[in-house]
Amino acid sequence: MNESRLLEHIARRSADLHGHGPVIVGPGDDCAVLRGSSGSMLITVDHLVEGRHYEPGTDIDLIARKAVARSVSDIAAMAGTPTWALATGALSDDMTQQQADELFERMSHWARHWGCPLVGGDIALMPRVGDTPGPTVLTVTVAGHTHPTRGPVLRSAARIGDDVYITGSVGASFSGGHHLRFEPRIAQAGWLADRLGDALGAMIDLSDGLGRDAGRVARASGVRIELDAARFPLRDPSRSPIAAAGDGEDYELLMTVRPGADLPDSIALGGDAPVPLTRIGRVCAGQGCVILTSGGDTIDATGLGWDHTSNG
Amino acid sequence: MNESRLLEHIARRSADLHGHGPVIVGPGDDCAVLRGSSGSMLITVDHLVEGRHYEPGTDIDLIARKAVARSVSDIAAMAGTPTWALATGALSDDMTQQQADELFERMSHWARHWGCPLVGGDIALMPRVGDTPGPTVLTVTVAGHTHPTRGPVLRSAARIGDDVYITGSVGASFSGGHHLRFEPRIAQAGWLADRLGDALGAMIDLSDGLGRDAGRVARASGVRIELDAARFPLRDPSRSPIAAAGDGEDYELLMTVRPGADLPDSIALGGDAPVPLTRIGRVCAGQGCVILTSGGDTIDATGLGWDHTSNG
Repeated sequence: MNESRLLEHIARRSADLHGHGPVIVGPGDDCAVLRGSSGSMLITVDHLVEGRHYEPGTDIDLIARKAVARSVSDIAAMAGTPTWALATGALSDDMTQQQADELFERMSHWARHWGCPLVGGDIALMPRVGDTPGPTVLTVTVAGHTHPTRGPVLRSAARIGDDVYITGSVGASFSGGHHLRFEPRIAQAGWLADRLGDALGAMIDLSDGLGRDAGRVARASGVRIELDAARFPLRDPSRSPIAAAGDGEDYELLMTVRPGADLPDSIALGGDAPVPLTRIGRVCAGQGCVILTSGGDTIDATGLGWDHTSNG
Repeated sequence: MNESRLLEHIARRSADLHGHGPVIVGPGDDCAVLRGSSGSMLITVDHLVEGRHYEPGTDIDLIARKAVARSVSDIAAMAGTPTWALATGALSDDMTQQQADELFERMSHWARHWGCPLVGGDIALMPRVGDTPGPTVLTVTVAGHTHPTRGPVLRSAARIGDDVYITGSVGASFSGGHHLRFEPRIAQAGWLADRLGDALGAMIDLSDGLGRDAGRVARASGVRIELDAARFPLRDPSRSPIAAAGDGEDYELLMTVRPGADLPDSIALGGDAPVPLTRIGRVCAGQGCVILTSGGDTIDATGLGWDHTSNG
């Protein structure tokens, strides 16, 4: 089964929804965008599956944190502000009542922490598979407001001539534990939307790897993206830029910025713990996404990394 | 693990949310109620777990239908109108790409059918457990508008002196296949809210059995509910009323109606396929929910049936 292909089918089937009824943007972006009477609403949902998105035995607080943070990161990718959340858990049979209670208590904690209190949810027991407990499967839905002046920042808004930037650094997220402790870039996205306005083009959060996710922006926008490997800010300097671009689970933001926006190649976005923002490439005519190496090679970036896409 | 107890913990922990920020009603009812600028919004999410809520090998269209219908039924329980939906699937490894695609196509179909097109979702692959494919786990989130004049119909609004009514019939739903083909009572709930206004007291949909769910209304409202076994409309006349009250998966509505509402004991709610509405009991001072048998016994109804509650 190929998740990306399945999601493309779903997005294609839903294409007629765009602009109809409450739907401004349907399946295929980081969030759906729905019409409200006081501005637009963002909505997104993500899975967290034991054995896929975290290892069995992971600390319950970190499981809860990641379950919420993944969806909050999708709101950040549209430059939105989280407002409320729903959580579901199909809970493994090997979980005690106390552990299950702690899991939901910590999801509730993190949801409030990021401004989107849990307003509801559902719990089911995961059946055993033969004699073995099945894995725990969580989903977290997060709703948000769009940015009050810039509106939702879509994947499809990159234009030829834009520069490509990313927040933070990439690579070695799963192996280094970053995937359990990342900070969704809500504040940084808000700062960029405030500061850049319409000069902030397209944006996406990096869940499946820099290469693959940059490729999604290129496809949605009908452009080509060229990335310079030598410019990639690496989380683990011993990792090659190409490998890092395929690692996934960075939960950083990649965005395109109109020429003339007067943004330096590298700045630190403010706050208590400044986050670097680095120019790593450009938007050109054509299609696809390539990485240019310092050795002069051109590597197709869209097949790098793994495939556990989410949308809406 | 006890799902009901866990959900009670969650609802208690979230009690401070009620009336704060966007939250009008938080966890603990059929839906959460959120403040919008043009009236209130309902939101609910439900699981559908292979091997728990449907048998492996069930027709894909019926799986999709039930996944959507369960959540739509929660909107009906608040007398709301569905507006949009999100679907997630953690898909078993034994599902082909074509089956997965069909599953989402049919969820999309049924969501549109009930007025709440899928605006987004997420797909994950369920890991194998040992050598065996894990079960498929679906969730469907449905949002809705509240009734324009009556507002949301809560579980907590039963009052001493109210009559208790149910739509349709109860019992033998899982064994008879009703659980895969039920029609969520959106139209009937709307009719009741139009016709009765504030005389429509509390409402709930019957997912875990008439006895257990009536007990939830009694607890939320701080009252006692007495049901007359002889009045239960039975789906399978060979089933005893007490057994039928524990069967669950009816997805009918139970409501309380103020005295003086001038509703007959038994009427058919209009439409192409009229749905019976039957008075089956009353709301009294006290607590709990009991069933009075024709033999003069009084049976505690709150422990009947099974426990796969959902909320919010």
